[in-house]
Amino acid sequence: MSQSPLNRAQVEQLVRQSLARFVGQGSSQSGQGPNPLVVNISARHCHLSQKSVEVLFGKGHQLTPKKWLYQEGQYAAEESVTLIGPRSRVISNLRILGPCRDFDQVELAATDAISLGFDIPVRNSGDIAGTPGCMLMGPAGFLEMNEGVIRAAPHVHMAPEDAAYYGVENKSFMKLRIGGDLGLTFDKIFVRVDPSFKLEVHIDTDEGNACGFTQKTPCELIK
Amino acid sequence: MSQSPLNRAQVEQLVRQSLARFVGQGSSQSGQGPNPLVVNISARHCHLSQKSVEVLFGKGHQLTPKKWLYQEGQYAAEESVTLIGPRSRVISNLRILGPCRDFDQVELAATDAISLGFDIPVRNSGDIAGTPGCMLMGPAGFLEMNEGVIRAAPHVHMAPEDAAYYGVENKSFMKLRIGGDLGLTFDKIFVRVDPSFKLEVHIDTDEGNACGFTQKTPCELIK
Repeated sequence: MSQSPLNRAQVEQLVRQSLARFVGQGSSQSGQGPNPLVVNISARHCHLSQKSVEVLFGKGHQLTPKKWLYQEGQYAAEESVTLIGPRSRVISNLRILGPCRDFDQVELAATDAISLGFDIPVRNSGDIAGTPGCMLMGPAGFLEMNEGVIRAAPHVHMAPEDAAYYGVENKSFMKLRIGGDLGLTFDKIFVRVDPSFKLEVHIDTDEGNACGFTQKTPCELIK
Repeated sequence: MSQSPLNRAQVEQLVRQSLARFVGQGSSQSGQGPNPLVVNISARHCHLSQKSVEVLFGKGHQLTPKKWLYQEGQYAAEESVTLIGPRSRVISNLRILGPCRDFDQVELAATDAISLGFDIPVRNSGDIAGTPGCMLMGPAGFLEMNEGVIRAAPHVHMAPEDAAYYGVENKSFMKLRIGGDLGLTFDKIFVRVDPSFKLEVHIDTDEGNACGFTQKTPCELIK
């Protein structure tokens, strides 16, 4: 685990585990791996290059962190854009996640794509060749993206020690079992291993709604 | 299977199975049960008593079938209502499914409930004690429902011959494995057995979106 102070998700997880032991029930997130399992729901968002940020917000503009995310150094920016879809339908306040990357990518849920009136493929982040494009509008201008609108495949970030514990490799797949009233197993969670990663699964809003996920819902990573 | 002419879903399923055998691939819906497996997505809708139909549409009003559903005798009516939620937020064109029942029930997806601004429990159809209510508005009046707004639990309708084949009983649970790009297993599909039922799984729009379900997506019922 990182040396930085615990964030809210980590503290909640530790409290939940302690309470669960205290009251003699299983932890809501089972398994005794080296790190607590955190599952977060990613709402629609975009990643932009610095060049694109300047097209949308003006020359020299730098993104301002608004809320730090669980992965080290990642943040939801103060800045958001308006997405204009292929039928001129619009999604306002599409959040930008920072820091800047070297490509532009919009991640939507299927419900968002339906409301915009187009089909988007399921892809891993960065794998955007041949995907649909869109127009983004910011206070300083328009950005035409020729491609890069995807539905992000459900995935898990983990450090090599987590991968060793679960017996999985970078770019392999594993399962995430979600308990609760609905009960649902994601059979293809894409594994991303990097020494900088904290153990965290990302599902999108549709996936979270389908399994009624809350931070109290029992869940388990399975090879 | 019923003696009535095959409907579109059955024809598609038969064609798909024949084609799959012809090209040497598995059927998209595997298993060799007595009846083809049909999975349908239920969009939000309501069931009403005849008394409630008359409150909303006028004395003596009878629902008019617009589209026959897969289950014998069930239909989407021409009539729809406006649902007014607890914060005065509204869903227009909420479809009524006929024929009338002896109670009023509204079935929404989690996304609908979020947009209306309230929490709804996961329940089996008919199990509405203690659930939230809402107001329905029709051309002839308002109907105040004190309870009956639910998120329907994913469920499967089947005849006794299907139950025997799958080794399940009425009111038990089984699993539905969905293939495709996403890959998702519903671990708690509630089983409803009745001699009048055709084999059909109902999932809601959120659940369908979460697994990217289309009529071409491979799926399988598992005990």
